[in-house]
Amino acid sequence: MRMRMMMLWLCFLTSVALNVFLLAYQNRNHEQKHGWSRRAAEEAEAVAAFNCSGHGRAYLDGDGPVCECNQCYEGPHCSFLNFSHRCVVDAYSGDPMYLEPFWMRKQNAESSAVVIAGWHRMSYFFQDLSYISPQLVLHIRRLHSLVNNAVVHSKHIVLGTGSTQLISAAVFALSIRDNLSSPAQVVATAPYYPVYETQTDYFRTARFEFGGEASSLNKASGDVIEVVTSPNNPDAQLMNRVLTGPNVKAVYDRAYYWPHYTAIPAPADEDLMLFTLSKVTGHAGSRLGWAIVKDKQVSENMKQYIKLAEIGSSKETQLRALQLIKSFLRQGDGKQIFRFAYETMSNRWEKLGKIMSSSKRFSIQQIPPQFCIFSDRVREASPAYAWVKCEREEDRDCCAVLRAANIVGRAGSLFGSDDRYVRLSLLKIQDDFDLLLRRLSILVSQEQGGSRADSM
Amino acid sequence: MRMRMMMLWLCFLTSVALNVFLLAYQNRNHEQKHGWSRRAAEEAEAVAAFNCSGHGRAYLDGDGPVCECNQCYEGPHCSFLNFSHRCVVDAYSGDPMYLEPFWMRKQNAESSAVVIAGWHRMSYFFQDLSYISPQLVLHIRRLHSLVNNAVVHSKHIVLGTGSTQLISAAVFALSIRDNLSSPAQVVATAPYYPVYETQTDYFRTARFEFGGEASSLNKASGDVIEVVTSPNNPDAQLMNRVLTGPNVKAVYDRAYYWPHYTAIPAPADEDLMLFTLSKVTGHAGSRLGWAIVKDKQVSENMKQYIKLAEIGSSKETQLRALQLIKSFLRQGDGKQIFRFAYETMSNRWEKLGKIMSSSKRFSIQQIPPQFCIFSDRVREASPAYAWVKCEREEDRDCCAVLRAANIVGRAGSLFGSDDRYVRLSLLKIQDDFDLLLRRLSILVSQEQGGSRADSM
Repeated sequence: MRMRMMMLWLCFLTSVALNVFLLAYQNRNHEQKHGWSRRAAEEAEAVAAFNCSGHGRAYLDGDGPVCECNQCYEGPHCSFLNFSHRCVVDAYSGDPMYLEPFWMRKQNAESSAVVIAGWHRMSYFFQDLSYISPQLVLHIRRLHSLVNNAVVHSKHIVLGTGSTQLISAAVFALSIRDNLSSPAQVVATAPYYPVYETQTDYFRTARFEFGGEASSLNKASGDVIEVVTSPNNPDAQLMNRVLTGPNVKAVYDRAYYWPHYTAIPAPADEDLMLFTLSKVTGHAGSRLGWAIVKDKQVSENMKQYIKLAEIGSSKETQLRALQLIKSFLRQGDGKQIFRFAYETMSNRWEKLGKIMSSSKRFSIQQIPPQFCIFSDRVREASPAYAWVKCEREEDRDCCAVLRAANIVGRAGSLFGSDDRYVRLSLLKIQDDFDLLLRRLSILVSQEQGGSRADSM
Repeated sequence: MRMRMMMLWLCFLTSVALNVFLLAYQNRNHEQKHGWSRRAAEEAEAVAAFNCSGHGRAYLDGDGPVCECNQCYEGPHCSFLNFSHRCVVDAYSGDPMYLEPFWMRKQNAESSAVVIAGWHRMSYFFQDLSYISPQLVLHIRRLHSLVNNAVVHSKHIVLGTGSTQLISAAVFALSIRDNLSSPAQVVATAPYYPVYETQTDYFRTARFEFGGEASSLNKASGDVIEVVTSPNNPDAQLMNRVLTGPNVKAVYDRAYYWPHYTAIPAPADEDLMLFTLSKVTGHAGSRLGWAIVKDKQVSENMKQYIKLAEIGSSKETQLRALQLIKSFLRQGDGKQIFRFAYETMSNRWEKLGKIMSSSKRFSIQQIPPQFCIFSDRVREASPAYAWVKCEREEDRDCCAVLRAANIVGRAGSLFGSDDRYVRLSLLKIQDDFDLLLRRLSILVSQEQGGSRADSM
């Protein structure tokens, strides 16, 4: 009896000791291991857990913990789809929200989160007195090496506040020259991304001006900066420069040259290429782009532009971009994001293709399959945008035709093309895409003489 | 005996139950409460805890967990001060690192940290389709209301990538006009911040050009944009516009109009005022500035500039800036950061003044004490920069005189002034300031015929 009593005492004391240890450990864990970051972590997790029915999300910097709903979804928890005439499907912007679910996956959520301390990088400068994170540059190089979509070896990398800023920086950098008798002509081949024209017009100096269509240029007319977008925005064709010669410099906008959107026939190796985080990871809101530049002086000129325009890019954005790229490069073979993006985009194209194939009123661009060195096979393109053409003689304003069906696209004339064309963004969140399909499906079914109750 | 045995059993079972609960709770706590943010929090806290001897710090995006040391400090833990001829004290830039210790204080570290989820604000747009966080704008208004340094009521707020970008945006916005017969003249009063000139020259269009000294302008010469910096950079004087008339528009750079640096005689109430996070919270690396604009059309023009230049500012930066401002507004009376900044800066001025008062070779600017509505008393200024004058006839290049003593300043001629002046930054980290004092003290002691062993 005494023996059992002693054993019991021993067990009891051991258990109490364990109690004390666990309580102490928990305390230490809470107060030390997650010391100053605890409040921020709890706040972020609480907001992330807020119920928005899968049709919206709450943000840390929202107006309290409130859902910001996807278009046409309503209610405090975004649970109600209001598919009435008030539900206008906005397919105007290239907002790459289709990648949001990738970052919400448990594993990616863990690896991509970043804690920014109050004292993180308060200085203008990194340790090397530059405005550009050496680690971020290193990881951008690794990213291109993995995908093999651009030659980065012995080239210079310039960061900008979105590739939008870098277009301007490139135009300024390439138009620095002695002979200012006539401004350099900034040209492109229609249909082209409207920003080349609006931005060049707005910032026009004595050194450059927008010259319109590349092929119409008088070749004897002095210095030329040709902007080539490949794959092209809006129609996704792989493009080459149309002008050559000692006075012609080319800027290649390679925003969409990722396996998400196109076969990669070979690594791009132009003298000046622009990329953007927006179309790789989906973080358009971060405003981070990079230029890959062969000539050191041109890269220095671009850095000078960025210094004078705004003394470098945000350190928070650079830290987060680094974490995002690290996040997928470190997992498995590093290619998950490309698989996710390609699967999503090709699935969307398949669905869109099915609807469009039954239409005589509308057509979309065709792109021949090509061998892709990243996928190691022949593959179809899965572009960011549908470049829709209204085929009926009377449908001269295709944008208006779609607008009447509650679909907002971007008119062809904005791209230096015909208003018989309209660009529809396929990059938005799944709900948006599903609504776009639904609206298009109604429109096409009407064309076949059908009419549906929900087509209001 | 049996009774005691039963009691013991009961205690034992309770203790075991407590253990089970604690283990389960801990698990839940770890896996749920700090789910996806745990890795990021641990990583950030580990980097923050890295030992840099108080003379440096490690960053999350550093080259591994390594210390980035303050100038002249060396070794893997920044523990060695190398005060040799290689230790050049750089007082060139207005890097506001003196505020870093404020954010490292335990309470502020907790309240200012922010966790950015992988899916945070991927879109270009906020819910209202703007590029500007409504919550951030609200908190900027609250900040000005607390300090009473600017009238914000019924004015518009435009965010930019640093106030540097907003200078350019303001010049573009104010030079939009029908009559383009002659470019608007951008002018300032020397000594003026060099960026007004370099930026205006660089971005010069047919609409505007840099016109130099405001007072020398022929008043009949058409449109004028006068940039007024108050307190002035470099010499901290409170400035007013020198030009008036229907063709003159003024941009007030109010970067230093905070109790950190100056008495606040009255809330500023100009039509277009520029502020920057850099000089309030110390976060120069974030590149965030704001304009307070009376005229709606001018604010829309500035937004258009930012849209065309880079489609809005970084969402990460906007989130962090919001958290930083929230952080101190919520604590106590919200004024701690102003007390910390003023105490640090006035302490620095006291020390600098002592050294300079014993010098006949150098002098610094004098600013009369003024009544401050924020402090509710007459106070001295505690400016961001010392505007040093070399008094000896032969010291025409003051910058070179200081450079010979291993002090790097910014030459007066860069400010449209005389090279007999040099600007020294007093905003840097305490170690930098201490070294600056040490170098200045040596220089002044030499002037008095003294010589010191460590003056190499």
